[in-house]
Amino acid sequence: MSGPTTPLAPVERAALARAVVLAARGLGGTRPNPVVGCVVLDAAGAVVGEGWHARAGDAHAEVVALRAAGERARGGTAVVTLEPCDHTGRTPPCSRALLAAGVARVVVAVPDPTPRAAGGTGTLAAAGVDVVHVPAGDDAAARRVNEAWLLAQRLGRPHVTWKLAATLDGRSAAADGTSRWITSPESRADAHLLRARSDAVVVGVGTVLADDPSLTVRDLPPTGDDVADAALAGRAPLRVVLDADGRTPPGAAVRRGSVPGGTPGVGETLVLTAADVGRGAGGGVDLAGALGALHGRGVRAVMLEGGPRLAGAFVDAGLVDRVRAYLAPALLGQGSAALVASATGASMDAVARLAVDDVARVGPDLRVDLVPLG
Amino acid sequence: MSGPTTPLAPVERAALARAVVLAARGLGGTRPNPVVGCVVLDAAGAVVGEGWHARAGDAHAEVVALRAAGERARGGTAVVTLEPCDHTGRTPPCSRALLAAGVARVVVAVPDPTPRAAGGTGTLAAAGVDVVHVPAGDDAAARRVNEAWLLAQRLGRPHVTWKLAATLDGRSAAADGTSRWITSPESRADAHLLRARSDAVVVGVGTVLADDPSLTVRDLPPTGDDVADAALAGRAPLRVVLDADGRTPPGAAVRRGSVPGGTPGVGETLVLTAADVGRGAGGGVDLAGALGALHGRGVRAVMLEGGPRLAGAFVDAGLVDRVRAYLAPALLGQGSAALVASATGASMDAVARLAVDDVARVGPDLRVDLVPLG
Repeated sequence: MSGPTTPLAPVERAALARAVVLAARGLGGTRPNPVVGCVVLDAAGAVVGEGWHARAGDAHAEVVALRAAGERARGGTAVVTLEPCDHTGRTPPCSRALLAAGVARVVVAVPDPTPRAAGGTGTLAAAGVDVVHVPAGDDAAARRVNEAWLLAQRLGRPHVTWKLAATLDGRSAAADGTSRWITSPESRADAHLLRARSDAVVVGVGTVLADDPSLTVRDLPPTGDDVADAALAGRAPLRVVLDADGRTPPGAAVRRGSVPGGTPGVGETLVLTAADVGRGAGGGVDLAGALGALHGRGVRAVMLEGGPRLAGAFVDAGLVDRVRAYLAPALLGQGSAALVASATGASMDAVARLAVDDVARVGPDLRVDLVPLG
Repeated sequence: MSGPTTPLAPVERAALARAVVLAARGLGGTRPNPVVGCVVLDAAGAVVGEGWHARAGDAHAEVVALRAAGERARGGTAVVTLEPCDHTGRTPPCSRALLAAGVARVVVAVPDPTPRAAGGTGTLAAAGVDVVHVPAGDDAAARRVNEAWLLAQRLGRPHVTWKLAATLDGRSAAADGTSRWITSPESRADAHLLRARSDAVVVGVGTVLADDPSLTVRDLPPTGDDVADAALAGRAPLRVVLDADGRTPPGAAVRRGSVPGGTPGVGETLVLTAADVGRGAGGGVDLAGALGALHGRGVRAVMLEGGPRLAGAFVDAGLVDRVRAYLAPALLGQGSAALVASATGASMDAVARLAVDDVARVGPDLRVDLVPLG
């Protein structure tokens, strides 16, 4: 990482916004790699190439965009969401490709924190390319799209998004098992989008025994981006059951269709027992151990779905990095009493404080994204 | 009610929006009257007068606006949020004032449903004034600002807004009494605004015994409208305790400063016992009886604040017309388990379904307004 931080030209700012959209197409498909988007501008500032990284082993975003640009890249600018790599992995380094294409300027939104891959900008600058790092603030969307991967690089464990669906009075399930109908079809479709963009979907065995979910990706709503829609339809996030004592039935829906690597919509199934990853204090599998096992398989983005006790354990362990809450505008009759019934001895010091990151209306429901404070 | 429904001219649409803002200044001050705003345009469409109804017995909005307009009203248009009255109450009928001022056209957003007061437009039309009722849709804001009064006219009981503050996992109180700190100072100030705009604030005796609230109006945030701010500072919503067995202590904060009619910020105190209004099935006061007593005192807009059981009883009785929820982005440690614990036997059939009417961010919190479905 090197180079000055200067304000972006309007055309570069627009190119970066587009590069983030391109990068997002890769979410759920690139493990263990980050998602990356690249837009190449010619010397006059016109867009001449776009690229995104679709899958580990496939061409990197810069290479795809440069290929599209061809000779028009010479003397132009490459705008990338993440610092170009400088090492030969399954593909040659992007820094070399940028030099070969003759770009005069490279705009980098987020430095690559990986020791092995980083340094691409150093190589470029040494070769006379004008390397620009975007000012703080302008990098927000590029950081957000790689949030999971960046956290995984920093902490050595996957990023965890806890998805919950609840009524306004904090009820997520009725006693008769109608919990799946708390939120609307629109919210459930939206949650399938989150699934498709995750590397792994995690539940506890309690949920498997109670609801027998398949944890497949289906019923995806159109995103307005046909290329992204086609990519999402091919996703197969790992289906993970945390199951300390191996109680997942052989015929469980979550096991159906599991093949190595998965098939479109149907991920490989992984049942993690205490024998595999250790046992935690509460008697369930050790959560850090489970996340470590997933990290070892290349998982960077985990979507945590029910059940109740498992989610609570992740919260208590400080292992929830984002909350995606679908709130239904409803009150459970008896639930409305529970909303305001005396708390079970908790003082306000015991509160996990979050910050609202985003609010949206999805069908009749509210979708609230939150991140832990501090 | 009479006259055609025609699309509004842009200048009339703007005048109506302004009239709604003017009307809103009266919220909390006009009981038992509705709030009304009026904008008078001269023959060329320029604004020449504004008025709003501040207090029962004071001049009506139309009269105030016409007084400001003077001779410039002649041949002009009066735009009003509610059909002008046609009867002599504490003030002469507005229909007569409009005729005397010589307006050529009257635009009415919402017909007056009151048999006694209605008919103003009939009188006007009979006298040759061009009376226009706004098309459906364009009347939404004018209906919303008088929502409480209109419902009270229809049902013969006050409109009830249940204000709740809860964490994301549906907890509104910790066991150690720190419930008041669940939401932010910004949300609490915003809730004081709702108090000031209500005719009465209602709590159960349980809340009085537990929290000893004063239920005064204070710490009002500026609304951006100095005239409204000055009016709000003078409000004194009735402080009502539902207290079947008369357990409200003589020295309770809610009793302090109570004088007939109230003083700015400090409303008169009313303790309603089972002897006053009857006893409900649950042992508390009869809720319909309590609302009837309040209606008899001119109360049209009730703000229901805690406690838990009382709010639940209102919900169960179908007596909540709007929910104002302040949601703090927090999870109570043990509360997070409660979010997902099995419901207490309720099936989804027992859910009270609402619709989200408005979402806003207030400080770090979410403010969600909801109305019952159907």
